[in-house]
Amino acid sequence: MGDIVGLLADVVGTEHVLTGPSIAPDYGHDECLTVTPVLPLAVARPATTAEVAAICRVAQEEHFPVVARGSGTGLSGAAVASPDAVLVSFERMNSVLELDTDNHVAVVQPGVTLQQLDDATTPLGLVYPVFPGESSASLGGNVATNAGGMRAVKYGVTRHQVLGLEAVLAGGQVIRTGGKFVKSSTGYDLTQLLVGSEGTLALVTEATLRLYPRPPHAATVLAPFDTLEEVTGAVPQVVHSGVGPRILEYVDAITMGAITGNVGLDLGIPDEVRSRTTAYLVVVLESGHEERLEQDVAALGEQLSELGAIDVYVLPPHAGAQLISAREKAFFVAKASGADDIVDVVVPRATIPRFLSAVAGFAEEQQALVTGCGHVGDGNVHLSVFQPDAEKRHDLLTAILGAGLALGGAITGEHGVGSEKKRYFMELEDPAKIALMRRIKAAFDPAGILNPGKIFDR
Amino acid sequence: MGDIVGLLADVVGTEHVLTGPSIAPDYGHDECLTVTPVLPLAVARPATTAEVAAICRVAQEEHFPVVARGSGTGLSGAAVASPDAVLVSFERMNSVLELDTDNHVAVVQPGVTLQQLDDATTPLGLVYPVFPGESSASLGGNVATNAGGMRAVKYGVTRHQVLGLEAVLAGGQVIRTGGKFVKSSTGYDLTQLLVGSEGTLALVTEATLRLYPRPPHAATVLAPFDTLEEVTGAVPQVVHSGVGPRILEYVDAITMGAITGNVGLDLGIPDEVRSRTTAYLVVVLESGHEERLEQDVAALGEQLSELGAIDVYVLPPHAGAQLISAREKAFFVAKASGADDIVDVVVPRATIPRFLSAVAGFAEEQQALVTGCGHVGDGNVHLSVFQPDAEKRHDLLTAILGAGLALGGAITGEHGVGSEKKRYFMELEDPAKIALMRRIKAAFDPAGILNPGKIFDR
Repeated sequence: MGDIVGLLADVVGTEHVLTGPSIAPDYGHDECLTVTPVLPLAVARPATTAEVAAICRVAQEEHFPVVARGSGTGLSGAAVASPDAVLVSFERMNSVLELDTDNHVAVVQPGVTLQQLDDATTPLGLVYPVFPGESSASLGGNVATNAGGMRAVKYGVTRHQVLGLEAVLAGGQVIRTGGKFVKSSTGYDLTQLLVGSEGTLALVTEATLRLYPRPPHAATVLAPFDTLEEVTGAVPQVVHSGVGPRILEYVDAITMGAITGNVGLDLGIPDEVRSRTTAYLVVVLESGHEERLEQDVAALGEQLSELGAIDVYVLPPHAGAQLISAREKAFFVAKASGADDIVDVVVPRATIPRFLSAVAGFAEEQQALVTGCGHVGDGNVHLSVFQPDAEKRHDLLTAILGAGLALGGAITGEHGVGSEKKRYFMELEDPAKIALMRRIKAAFDPAGILNPGKIFDR
Repeated sequence: MGDIVGLLADVVGTEHVLTGPSIAPDYGHDECLTVTPVLPLAVARPATTAEVAAICRVAQEEHFPVVARGSGTGLSGAAVASPDAVLVSFERMNSVLELDTDNHVAVVQPGVTLQQLDDATTPLGLVYPVFPGESSASLGGNVATNAGGMRAVKYGVTRHQVLGLEAVLAGGQVIRTGGKFVKSSTGYDLTQLLVGSEGTLALVTEATLRLYPRPPHAATVLAPFDTLEEVTGAVPQVVHSGVGPRILEYVDAITMGAITGNVGLDLGIPDEVRSRTTAYLVVVLESGHEERLEQDVAALGEQLSELGAIDVYVLPPHAGAQLISAREKAFFVAKASGADDIVDVVVPRATIPRFLSAVAGFAEEQQALVTGCGHVGDGNVHLSVFQPDAEKRHDLLTAILGAGLALGGAITGEHGVGSEKKRYFMELEDPAKIALMRRIKAAFDPAGILNPGKIFDR
């Protein structure tokens, strides 16, 4: 170990290699509810791509694992390193390198946070449109997990914004993929392969991201419904209308009570409406033109009434923003309430009622409470699972995720597999695809030094 | 050979295996200007995924190459098979399997043409938004080359529409990737890796594609400019305005004359304007609301005048459609004029003037005529190159593509590498990336039977 620390210090400087008690506990976990905190052998804090490359070369020679870490806000354990590994923290590589208003892109280092990028783009009238709900998250982490969030229904997820990358390969070579353009048919798309690969294929040291005009006007519409079927049935109609919602969420009645209670938000919904509501549809519209927004809100309200909404509330701007912010904190409410695990399965959006009715059956079988909300516009369902017994919880999650797959879905929509969903991925995913992914991993990292044991077993 | 033909006939039936003189000449080429026609050993026309899988198993056992072919409208030679190869023509797998209006997706077989899908989605008020300019092209071919086209500035290219695939691996296993959802963080994105892989990693047998509301109203605005710099300078301003153009093209004066002349279209532009015009900006706007479209057109006209347009013409619907259709036929005009090669390099859009000024210098050096038009909204420049001498042309293309790469671009924006841009790809691309792509190829196809020798040498 002395050797490794010395070699790392030669690369990044002694003050940027942490070992033993100098490693703060935060480096040992992410925000995942189930992960066991583990401190790495050492934390290295490189300042440049060249230093990251040098770390990889040392790792290859000395055979130690390398695990990339951004802000540590992940929900799958992907950035938690084993005790024999070196954690590469990108906290010092945190510059917005370029805001290019001619090509509408930002070039960022991996340690830049979403908040930092939002602050930098606001004065330009531009926006990086991925809002996974935690603005202290780093762009490097967002790229590694292919972060999603509430605006995916309009803008897509992280992979749709990543136009190019600089990345360090396991052997220390630095490659650049893509660029400041949306189209290329020049060989395999390495950019898209690296996005969502959770640090197992390469270390991303720079990302070129799409920016969009920031629409100045937005409105939040809230519609309570008697049944979830009506909520999900309304979604394709709203999409088909062409109104292009920025956000299209459902929140079940229990979760709505919890998230609004958490921030002391009173939406002013009468008791007689609240008592018969099973689920709420939340729609955020945005526009460059105030009067068009008003027309769209009016048309949407009429449409939702026709589609069976008990009532339709257009929230005042402040309450609307509060509701979205409360919804973004749903995970922390679940955590504070003692949830034992969370699920972020994705299914074809029209199958959500069938999926949730299956979930209710499984929950009853395993004596568990399962509550939820989700990105109803894109089929991404977030469930909080309350069942302290590990075995029952495992059976429950296996059933839930299996039902999602059977409906044509996928195990995780935006949190990633990491270490904590790996067991389910290995059990439920097609072995031919896992074998293929392992061969891709070997093509990038034959010695297996990059975040080994994440996504699938070594 | 008798053996192989017999084995193929066992799979697809004797009448669907073509050999020798029964192979029509069309199977020996695509639309690429430089490709040498070659007839394959045999053409197999499977009807099902199971038949495609069986062909791959036979190929693996008998060691013959397999080349996938859609409509043969490609521009890189990727679907042209060597004389020892079996061409798998997807002409019989041409069904739209599903139009799912709840999840807004179409599920298609690879032999479905763009025209067929457009005809099927029109009555539903939906649209598959990729229009690469040739509506007889097949979706399988579009997926293989990651086809782009004029609407990429608004909707992105093929890869942004492909949500899931069914594909046959080299060994005959059938995998399904993705699904009817936009977000997933469940392992490596095999869907995106297969899109644009030109048949070298797997044979795509089904694609799940995004559909969008089809905006009922559209308008075409044409603005002549004195300089190309003014055209490209206008682009970020138009994008920033939030008007969300469906199409944002530039056409140089020579090309405009040729493409409108080709279809006998008179745009009514006065001689004194035409004579001083270097390049035209063509903008198509679309909307669900007629009055919003009118407002947007008026605002755009004002903006373009302020940005230096000599004049601004709002074309009547018929003339607008004719101009776009004439622009789509630019390739055939170039072909008919005797162009010796075409280039579809992509560069950061703001660098187009610098790029084209470099191109003009190279053209002069090699005594060549180079004319062009392009997707100015996304930096994809189409050039027609007139220089019959192969060596001079090679030097010219090397210089042109090298200049594109030096500006942060890529060799081909939408046509693909295939056989015809391979030499440039091998000469100009980073060897570390080519090595990585070769290892990925080996991870999918260790025996090298899938379209060998395309993109890079075996």
